[in-house]
Amino acid sequence: MLRQFLPADVPSQMEGTFIEHFDRATGGSGRLMLFAGDQKVEHLNNDFFGPQIPAEDNDPEHLFKIASHADIGVFATQFGLITRYGRDYADVPYLVKLNAKTNLVPYTDEDPYSQQWLEVEDVVRFKASSGLSIVGVGYTVYLGGIHEHSMLREAARIVHEAHRNGLLAVLWIYPKGPYVKDEHDAHLIAGAAGVGACLGADFVKLKVPYLNGTFDPKLLQEATEAAGRTGVLCEGGDKIDEAAFLAQLHEQIHIGGSRGNGTGRNIHQRPFREAVKMANAIYAVTVRNASVEEALEIASG
Amino acid sequence: MLRQFLPADVPSQMEGTFIEHFDRATGGSGRLMLFAGDQKVEHLNNDFFGPQIPAEDNDPEHLFKIASHADIGVFATQFGLITRYGRDYADVPYLVKLNAKTNLVPYTDEDPYSQQWLEVEDVVRFKASSGLSIVGVGYTVYLGGIHEHSMLREAARIVHEAHRNGLLAVLWIYPKGPYVKDEHDAHLIAGAAGVGACLGADFVKLKVPYLNGTFDPKLLQEATEAAGRTGVLCEGGDKIDEAAFLAQLHEQIHIGGSRGNGTGRNIHQRPFREAVKMANAIYAVTVRNASVEEALEIASG
Amino acid sequence: MLRQFLPADVPSQMEGTFIEHFDRATGGSGRLMLFAGDQKVEHLNNDFFGPQIPAEDNDPEHLFKIASHADIGVFATQFGLITRYGRDYADVPYLVKLNAKTNLVPYTDEDPYSQQWLEVEDVVRFKASSGLSIVGVGYTVYLGGIHEHSMLREAARIVHEAHRNGLLAVLWIYPKGPYVKDEHDAHLIAGAAGVGACLGADFVKLKVPYLNGTFDPKLLQEATEAAGRTGVLCEGGDKIDEAAFLAQLHEQIHIGGSRGNGTGRNIHQRPFREAVKMANAIYAVTVRNASVEEALEIASG
Amino acid sequence: MLRQFLPADVPSQMEGTFIEHFDRATGGSGRLMLFAGDQKVEHLNNDFFGPQIPAEDNDPEHLFKIASHADIGVFATQFGLITRYGRDYADVPYLVKLNAKTNLVPYTDEDPYSQQWLEVEDVVRFKASSGLSIVGVGYTVYLGGIHEHSMLREAARIVHEAHRNGLLAVLWIYPKGPYVKDEHDAHLIAGAAGVGACLGADFVKLKVPYLNGTFDPKLLQEATEAAGRTGVLCEGGDKIDEAAFLAQLHEQIHIGGSRGNGTGRNIHQRPFREAVKMANAIYAVTVRNASVEEALEIASG
Amino acid sequence: MLRQFLPADVPSQMEGTFIEHFDRATGGSGRLMLFAGDQKVEHLNNDFFGPQIPAEDNDPEHLFKIASHADIGVFATQFGLITRYGRDYADVPYLVKLNAKTNLVPYTDEDPYSQQWLEVEDVVRFKASSGLSIVGVGYTVYLGGIHEHSMLREAARIVHEAHRNGLLAVLWIYPKGPYVKDEHDAHLIAGAAGVGACLGADFVKLKVPYLNGTFDPKLLQEATEAAGRTGVLCEGGDKIDEAAFLAQLHEQIHIGGSRGNGTGRNIHQRPFREAVKMANAIYAVTVRNASVEEALEIASG
Repeated sequence: MLRQFLPADVPSQMEGTFIEHFDRATGGSGRLMLFAGDQKVEHLNNDFFGPQIPAEDNDPEHLFKIASHADIGVFATQFGLITRYGRDYADVPYLVKLNAKTNLVPYTDEDPYSQQWLEVEDVVRFKASSGLSIVGVGYTVYLGGIHEHSMLREAARIVHEAHRNGLLAVLWIYPKGPYVKDEHDAHLIAGAAGVGACLGADFVKLKVPYLNGTFDPKLLQEATEAAGRTGVLCEGGDKIDEAAFLAQLHEQIHIGGSRGNGTGRNIHQRPFREAVKMANAIYAVTVRNASVEEALEIASG
Repeated sequence: MLRQFLPADVPSQMEGTFIEHFDRATGGSGRLMLFAGDQKVEHLNNDFFGPQIPAEDNDPEHLFKIASHADIGVFATQFGLITRYGRDYADVPYLVKLNAKTNLVPYTDEDPYSQQWLEVEDVVRFKASSGLSIVGVGYTVYLGGIHEHSMLREAARIVHEAHRNGLLAVLWIYPKGPYVKDEHDAHLIAGAAGVGACLGADFVKLKVPYLNGTFDPKLLQEATEAAGRTGVLCEGGDKIDEAAFLAQLHEQIHIGGSRGNGTGRNIHQRPFREAVKMANAIYAVTVRNASVEEALEIASG
Repeated sequence: MLRQFLPADVPSQMEGTFIEHFDRATGGSGRLMLFAGDQKVEHLNNDFFGPQIPAEDNDPEHLFKIASHADIGVFATQFGLITRYGRDYADVPYLVKLNAKTNLVPYTDEDPYSQQWLEVEDVVRFKASSGLSIVGVGYTVYLGGIHEHSMLREAARIVHEAHRNGLLAVLWIYPKGPYVKDEHDAHLIAGAAGVGACLGADFVKLKVPYLNGTFDPKLLQEATEAAGRTGVLCEGGDKIDEAAFLAQLHEQIHIGGSRGNGTGRNIHQRPFREAVKMANAIYAVTVRNASVEEALEIASG
Repeated sequence: MLRQFLPADVPSQMEGTFIEHFDRATGGSGRLMLFAGDQKVEHLNNDFFGPQIPAEDNDPEHLFKIASHADIGVFATQFGLITRYGRDYADVPYLVKLNAKTNLVPYTDEDPYSQQWLEVEDVVRFKASSGLSIVGVGYTVYLGGIHEHSMLREAARIVHEAHRNGLLAVLWIYPKGPYVKDEHDAHLIAGAAGVGACLGADFVKLKVPYLNGTFDPKLLQEATEAAGRTGVLCEGGDKIDEAAFLAQLHEQIHIGGSRGNGTGRNIHQRPFREAVKMANAIYAVTVRNASVEEALEIASG
Repeated sequence: MLRQFLPADVPSQMEGTFIEHFDRATGGSGRLMLFAGDQKVEHLNNDFFGPQIPAEDNDPEHLFKIASHADIGVFATQFGLITRYGRDYADVPYLVKLNAKTNLVPYTDEDPYSQQWLEVEDVVRFKASSGLSIVGVGYTVYLGGIHEHSMLREAARIVHEAHRNGLLAVLWIYPKGPYVKDEHDAHLIAGAAGVGACLGADFVKLKVPYLNGTFDPKLLQEATEAAGRTGVLCEGGDKIDEAAFLAQLHEQIHIGGSRGNGTGRNIHQRPFREAVKMANAIYAVTVRNASVEEALEIASG
């Protein structure tokens, strides 16, 4: 691990632990491939059951099978779900997502508040008592509404508590609400990146910037620079074509300066074997500097 | 108990306790017959006094008499009510319902908030000091309103605290409020099932799905699969005909994949001896794999 | 004390203390004569100063003089008021009312919230350090508004903490707000009684039921039965004629099944000696099974 | 000190301390001359800078100079201000005002909430570590709005914590908001006095009652009697003529039954030497039973 | 350090520590040059990226480089950002800003609430474990809205906790919201200064007063006097011409009586070497009593 990625609030006796977690999560590359499996609350059952989705995706164990067979950096999901499958999947590198909300109330009607469910100390004690490979925690912040202050406070405390215990801290930061005209605006996303840095996050997951509805990797540069030593992860989003996905990922990293990716539906909305291959391809680009061609070979392998 | 039903946040020194509670509650079957007696707050006195209701149901002791004489998995009711009768009914397997609200304010006018009354540690200490057979705790979550975040947090903490202390955790999860067009929609119910799994519940009690107002056990399959290792309990609902009730219960389990049932009015709105027989019939279907015919025989015994 | 009145959350080492308090408060009868002196907050100075009220009632010491000279079960008032007079009235059996609100904001305009002022542990420590004869605590719950959840939680905790410390717990439970069409409806009052039982209260003070504006003691039966082992206390209300008051009280107990009465204005809005006699008469009916005639003799004695 | 002024929640080992503080504050008279210096938050800079105000009043040290040179019972101001000057004015008898709010938002637009800033235990520890002569704490309660419940709870806790630590507790109690038609109504003020007694305050500072806009000391009698053993302090209000002020003060005490006065602007809005003389005159009337004539001599002395 | 700047709530065993921090921050002058770097949350990326801003300002490390190479009193920024760069910039004198909010919601639409992120004890422990040169903490209070009470409480507690631990406390105090007609009004700013004194702050950062849109240093005198022993810092504001900035700063101190300045954009919106020189010039005026001419020489040096 590069020394500059070691935050100053990791106490000396926890430095080894933090470095171990960081290297496990990034494969020593400093880049994070985050397999996102927190949508069962965020989107209820929409991402797991439907005409375009393989039947096996409706069983939560599908996520754990992929996470244990594929190359991944971390598998991010809720504490409770980890408790239901963890005994059978103890070696998956988990990132415990500490908050979640459903999509029942539209952002346009109520400012969203996704409150912290459990404390970092619960995670630390659970890690010790269960022996699971938990490497970090995650939390989503919505900027711009009446609950912003609560979420900023929870985020700051979670990041600091994580570091004190040698755990990685990943924040999802999304401006929302009536004052946000365009959540894909590059300058706004760079602002969210800076907030992530001020909260002390190791990685911050952001929306992908668009200009006139089109992604250009150069648009990311303002955000990745503003984030400083906090790594920017690009949101995976709706499931799209493999080639397009992997090409975009490659550009995000090598042109945009991102340090990883958080991908859910583009992995788990596939049958098990295909999902594993897609995860492996994403991992290869993110962590192993694979070219798009090499990655496509893995994906279709 | 199947090893897969042992959540990973039960610490090793509490595994025996948890397994004992789980087996007591499910009769070793993995399925839970939950006798619901929490309506004195939820519905005030509507379920206990009225033209179609036997007079004895107005006395809260009616519930305890049934619970102690019938075959049941657990008797779910409020802590306070248990304290009033517990010394005389020490062997009933109790599930302490930790929150409740009245029905005075309609869901259409105010988003419901049913706050936690007592802590899991209060239950644990009470169990120890009283010697009562408390096997678990319960909590209701309403999804979709301004209090969702508070209830998700309380639920997550209750489930984890219960497991740390070797207790079962059952959640009642109901989407409510102006954004819920049809609370009997199968896809929405499957979403609630997934939330229960992400909260780490051992069992989740859900609404029964309807299509065009009709129940079809196949509609349950999306939810029971989405719940993963969390068992789905179907709500008992208004009192209906015994044969219809038991047939539906059988289909819920054997076609729909549910792992039990939460029944209140269909039991306690009967004179004592009939109530016991109905509870026994429900238990036979749920836990002992009885056929509908066998169960009807028990009910009419 | 009847064993059935001993709640299961009184730990074995506190059983003796609880029984002593219960017997002191009920004179061994199981029925409670509660002298209510909490109106200085609830009604500001309206109950203590005015054309129909004797001048001495304006001095708070009037309440303590009555409480110390009359036969009463408990004298219920705020902690702070007890601290101002307690050294001179150490033997009065006190019930510390733990919440209160003023009447400045009408219930029609804002849902009422009467928050807990002090903790049960404050009462327990105060009892020990002062040597006062504190036998229990009290708390008011308003059902039906946006603060219902806060008050249910506080009530549940207070009852349990009281029992853990060998103290009685009395709840005042009143449905309020725009959804309550008739707060004297017998079925609604029975609902409140059931809530009191589910909260574990030893006694619950309720509104008196009316049918078409008239009290009939039979109307109380639904509530006193629904309360189970929790004793129902009828509210004393505005000051009325002594004979009518005592006759109604006798019917509430012997026909309606109530287990006591909470009376304030009908006692303290009299000159000292008359107030003592009226309290004695109420006590005689409640605790000593006196007839209305015997009681009237005491009152006019 | 009269034994009847010793509240029962002062533990025996703190009785000596409480009596010492009470006697220091009241000069052994049972009456309190409170020099109020909390307006820098309550009224921002309006009371300290302007055409009718001497230039030296703008420097906060003016208050401390007066407090240290004049005869006063207590000097009431915020904790923070005491910390800035306390080392140079260690012998001033301080009353730490524990809450404050600005006047930016009118009472007509928002119900006021003046939240507690620090805990009584902070004051106790500060007193011990600094050696300052802190004799008590103060807190303002606004009755009648949506925050009433929060302030009643904070007040009750502060009074009790103060007594446990041998400190005096003074409450400012003012009904406010749209439901208060006339905050100078004698009956309403008597209600506030009773609330102060129920909260256990040693002294309660109230508005001065008017009838048709005119003060009559007899109007105070309802309140001073309703307050019982809690002493009533009359608010000093806007700066007025010395003779009128002292005459009114004398009547408040000797006809109205008040037990002191809280005066700020009528003292500090004068040059240093005049302010000291005015404070001495107020003290003489309050504590030394001086006549108006004697007091005027001191004031002009 | 002047003895009068030592607050009374610094315990004797922490006096040496406090004096050391105060002298480090003020260079022994009692005046504070505060380099403000908290805008990445407050203004998102607006202050760091744009046509008039050098490209290097977009990298957060730019701030740390300036802070470590220039003469500054303190560098004020968020805890999290300090953790990301602190290991490489351990000797910078840090002031940890404990709250922050974004600018997404306009003050005209919602009263602002900038909640405390971390506790003073977190800062104290972090200082000890990291060895960084943290000399104090900061917090912003918005007066005039529905969250005023929360922020006053947090501010009072932060100041006291800081002093107990030997740390400086700096408050930013800004009246905001619909009731504030002119936030540059000298009398209003003096009110905010007094609030800072009552909260016990060592320094209070205020808006600069204007009369008819023009700054006159005499306008500051009301505020600097009302602040008493709390030093007034003037806000730096938008980037302006160097000569004008330094002349105004000199007048603020020598005519207006301010005791320092909080400057961000006027420093960091320059290329590194120019930024360092500008910071040095500001420091020279603030701490070393440099003339405007001497300072300009340093700035252009």
